[in-house]
Amino acid sequence: MAHRLSDTITLLERTPAALDALLRDLPEFWTNRNEGEGTFSIPYVIGHLIYADKENWLPRARRILDYGESKPFDKFDRWGHVEICRGKSLPQLLEDFARIRAACLDELRSVNLQPAQLALRGNHPALGAVTLSELLATWAAHDLTHIHQISRILAGSYRDEVGPFAKFLGVLKCNGHGG
Amino acid sequence: MAHRLSDTITLLERTPAALDALLRDLPEFWTNRNEGEGTFSIPYVIGHLIYADKENWLPRARRILDYGESKPFDKFDRWGHVEICRGKSLPQLLEDFARIRAACLDELRSVNLQPAQLALRGNHPALGAVTLSELLATWAAHDLTHIHQISRILAGSYRDEVGPFAKFLGVLKCNGHGG
Repeated sequence: MAHRLSDTITLLERTPAALDALLRDLPEFWTNRNEGEGTFSIPYVIGHLIYADKENWLPRARRILDYGESKPFDKFDRWGHVEICRGKSLPQLLEDFARIRAACLDELRSVNLQPAQLALRGNHPALGAVTLSELLATWAAHDLTHIHQISRILAGSYRDEVGPFAKFLGVLKCNGHGG
Repeated sequence: MAHRLSDTITLLERTPAALDALLRDLPEFWTNRNEGEGTFSIPYVIGHLIYADKENWLPRARRILDYGESKPFDKFDRWGHVEICRGKSLPQLLEDFARIRAACLDELRSVNLQPAQLALRGNHPALGAVTLSELLATWAAHDLTHIHQISRILAGSYRDEVGPFAKFLGVLKCNGHGG
């Protein structure tokens, strides 16, 4: 199912400012926790979004445009953000994310993709054939998955503090669904 | 477990701007859907946050300070936002939310609650005894539950558009956990 690229861009444009408004200068009480071994802290989530903008979405889109299904996408390093985050504060990462996202969207607009191109297929190393439309729609949905994750990481800091109200708070029952 | 009121206020202050940055002027494609019968659209979520700020958090805090456990909290109308939302655009609701939230936090600061007061108990109609600390911590966690919900409502618009990538997107597997 093809999608309207303008809807995707509209959402992708908003994520850095939304995360900046929520997270900048939030005390470490809120931002330092993760959800256990092998999970992301808030700075790691922002680093992951940066790394994915650099290494995943547009490089894969270019792979589809250049090679179609004949050359699979490079694998994505789920821990590629560690180097990006080293020595950087959360506000610095939020600024980097805003800058890189804006540059990526400038580049995406400059390609001026046509509907027929959105139907082109690439070769995902785990999923097999995917369309350029699906890849770009996933870029936006991936932002939303990480907003979902951030709300959950933050809420976890208050798991005990809310006492019996926990039963009314869906975010505290969320286990991330493996994604 | 008592919490630091300053941590709660810090988070509560940020929610309106974060939601404004994410949602203002987003096309109706993104903001008009809900998750099925009896669920909230994005404007209804903002209306619900407004209604809860007006009718729930501080009124219940005042009830604890004035009556302790002797007079239960009034019940909360889960559909109280319908009247608030009538005839209002999403940008208008976001502005109302920012204004009402700022006024509530001014009022909360003016009460200048002391640690001993945070341990005072009230009488919740469904949960029984809850402390003022738990009530105020839940105000912040409730914001996060609705950010969690908003990310899920938005992502649902791209359920089909992401194709096989859906298996990697936790937000698309979330059912809201009844909260």
